[in-house]
Order: sequence, then C-alpha cells, then structure tokens
Amino acid sequence: MKELEDRIRRDGIIGEGGVLKVDSFLNHQMDVGLFRAMSREWARLFTGEGVSKILTIEASGIGIACVAALEFGVPVVFAKKSRTKNIAGDVYRTEVPSFTHGGVSDVVVSKRFLLPGDRLLLIDDFLANGAALEGLLTLAGQAGAAVAGVGVAIEKAFQPGGARIRAMGVRVEALARVKSMSPGRIEFC
Amino acid sequence: MKELEDRIRRDGIIGEGGVLKVDSFLNHQMDVGLFRAMSREWARLFTGEGVSKILTIEASGIGIACVAALEFGVPVVFAKKSRTKNIAGDVYRTEVPSFTHGGVSDVVVSKRFLLPGDRLLLIDDFLANGAALEGLLTLAGQAGAAVAGVGVAIEKAFQPGGARIRAMGVRVEALARVKSMSPGRIEFC
Repeated sequence: MKELEDRIRRDGIIGEGGVLKVDSFLNHQMDVGLFRAMSREWARLFTGEGVSKILTIEASGIGIACVAALEFGVPVVFAKKSRTKNIAGDVYRTEVPSFTHGGVSDVVVSKRFLLPGDRLLLIDDFLANGAALEGLLTLAGQAGAAVAGVGVAIEKAFQPGGARIRAMGVRVEALARVKSMSPGRIEFC
Repeated sequence: MKELEDRIRRDGIIGEGGVLKVDSFLNHQMDVGLFRAMSREWARLFTGEGVSKILTIEASGIGIACVAALEFGVPVVFAKKSRTKNIAGDVYRTEVPSFTHGGVSDVVVSKRFLLPGDRLLLIDDFLANGAALEGLLTLAGQAGAAVAGVGVAIEKAFQPGGARIRAMGVRVEALARVKSMSPGRIEFC
C-alpha cells in the first residue's frame, strides 16, 4: 500500500538491533486517518470472507483493530497479556515471547468472546518473528473458531514469521512488506 | 448518554469487590459502533474546544480513543505502562497505582508527542479512583500542554476520582455516571 510505504520512508526511524521505529504514526502516536485508509484496504482484500470478529493483542494492535472493525462492521476482541481480576473464570490461554519487553507473556482471552462459529480476522501492527500472531492463532484454535486471515500493517519480510504463518495455510495481507533496511535506507518487496 | 446506560444495564455484570464488568462491549470485546456513538457525543460536548490531540493510556482506553480521534480529526497518543526498548530516550514519566493488577505501573510517553502547544482531550474507559487520569494530567503538565477536558465512558460517581479531578478545574464528561450498584441493580446519576 503506497500510502503506508511512503509514510514509513518519511517518518520511520531505523534503530539499533533491527528495530523499525514507527512510533510517530503507528504504535505510540497514532494517525487514525492512516488507520482508516489501511482498514479500507483490508476490507477490500477480505471482501466476501464473512469476517465475524476481529482478534488482536494488546496494546499496539488495539487502535488499528478498532478502526478496521468500523469498516468491517464487526466487534473487536483483544487478547490480554496477563490475567487481571477483571477477567473471570474461563479463558483460553497461551504463552507469547515478547520482542519488545523480553521474557514471556501469558496471553488470555475470555471463552465467552471466541466462539466456534466465529470467522476471525487477526490484526496487528507488526509481523516479524510472528510470535504474537501465532499466539492468536493458538487461541483461535482452542476456541474452534475459523480464521479468515491475518492483516498486519508492516511485515519484516526478512524475518521468518510471515513465511511460517503462510505455511500453515493462513492468508496474510501485509500492507507494507520490508525487504531490507539499514540506517537511512529501506526497501519494500 | 442513554444508549450507554441501557447497554450497561443489559450487559454489565456487577462482580465482587465493587467491580463492574463491561467486558462484553467496552474493554475486552469492544462494540465499535457503540464507541462511535459515544465519540459523537464527546465531539458535540467539546465542540469549539480546539482539541489538537487525544491522550489515553494502555490498554483499554486505546480503542475508544482511536474511534473518538476519527470524529475529532486528530491523532491519538497513548501512554505506556512500562518502558520498552522501542521508546527511545526522552520521555515524560509518572507512576500510577493499578486497581486491576495491583502494584504500581511506571507510565511513560515520548516527549516528541506531547507539545506545549497541544490542547489535549484525555479519554479512558473508566473513572473510579482517578489514578490513571491523574497520571495523564501529570504527563500533560510535564509537557506544558493544555487540557481541554476528560472524556470517560463510565464514571463510578460513588468513588472519589471524578470529584478530585473536577476540583482541579478540569472539565470531565462521563457518558454514564453510576450512582450506586449492587448485584442485579444499578442506578445512574
């Protein structure tokens, strides 16, 4: 998607350790006008897929997922990274290693909100090693819900997550696929 | 706001320890159509206030804030609950006690995204003891940004947060103000 690629070229910052910082428009400050354009692109790509619900994971996926949900006319469910006393009783649960925080997070979603009849669209800001999205696929599987596909804003195509998820037979629509990056220079697929 | 009050009466669950669970539509599963109606109400209430940015805190405020930002035509910034390696260098920082998790969270926002010229609308799902919103007010103060007001979905008016924030001279617009609640029964102001 050209609008997103142009924005990454203009405002993205390539930091140390393979970090692509897009915190001025995607995951700290959030440009919701851009999110709407991205959401319309996903709505076009997943037309006729019968998406019943969007599933994402806290925190930076939530904003994009909610704007997308307005386009699809469906609710959002976000998986939580640790159990709080506001999540009662029965949850689906898995573990996800965290790239940004280090360590492992317990990821949970209430059983009441993922149903066997659901057809889920998974949304997140980044796809790199794929750990978060694999966690969401695990939760969907526990619920017996179908997965219509995955929508991510940015895929780091030089990391293995995208290939691994596509190899599971899951459709992945990344709106910007980074082929390579180095300070001052970014190439898209 | 009648639509929100009706929804709380219908789908809210009053749990032990003064917890009002609205996780089927507000802060775990999210009804973005309801969020849009709420956002239009805030846009009406804050007309002419010159809001330049919406400030919220992860995680459950983010979805509401992003839908509201579409109505206001402004970006969202969300404060993060712990420092990650994706937040570089200069941040505003404060501590917020957590009602749902226990303990204290370090709350940070990048200095690049809160500016002295900003006129902020603070958005969150709940106002009870007011700790999260007071943390956001502290961050806004550190940045020298003006605060146009606070928009919350639900205020527990029997807890002290709302009174304390209004006593600071901050305008608070709660779309549903709970006067009292007990299992099976909820009264609004």
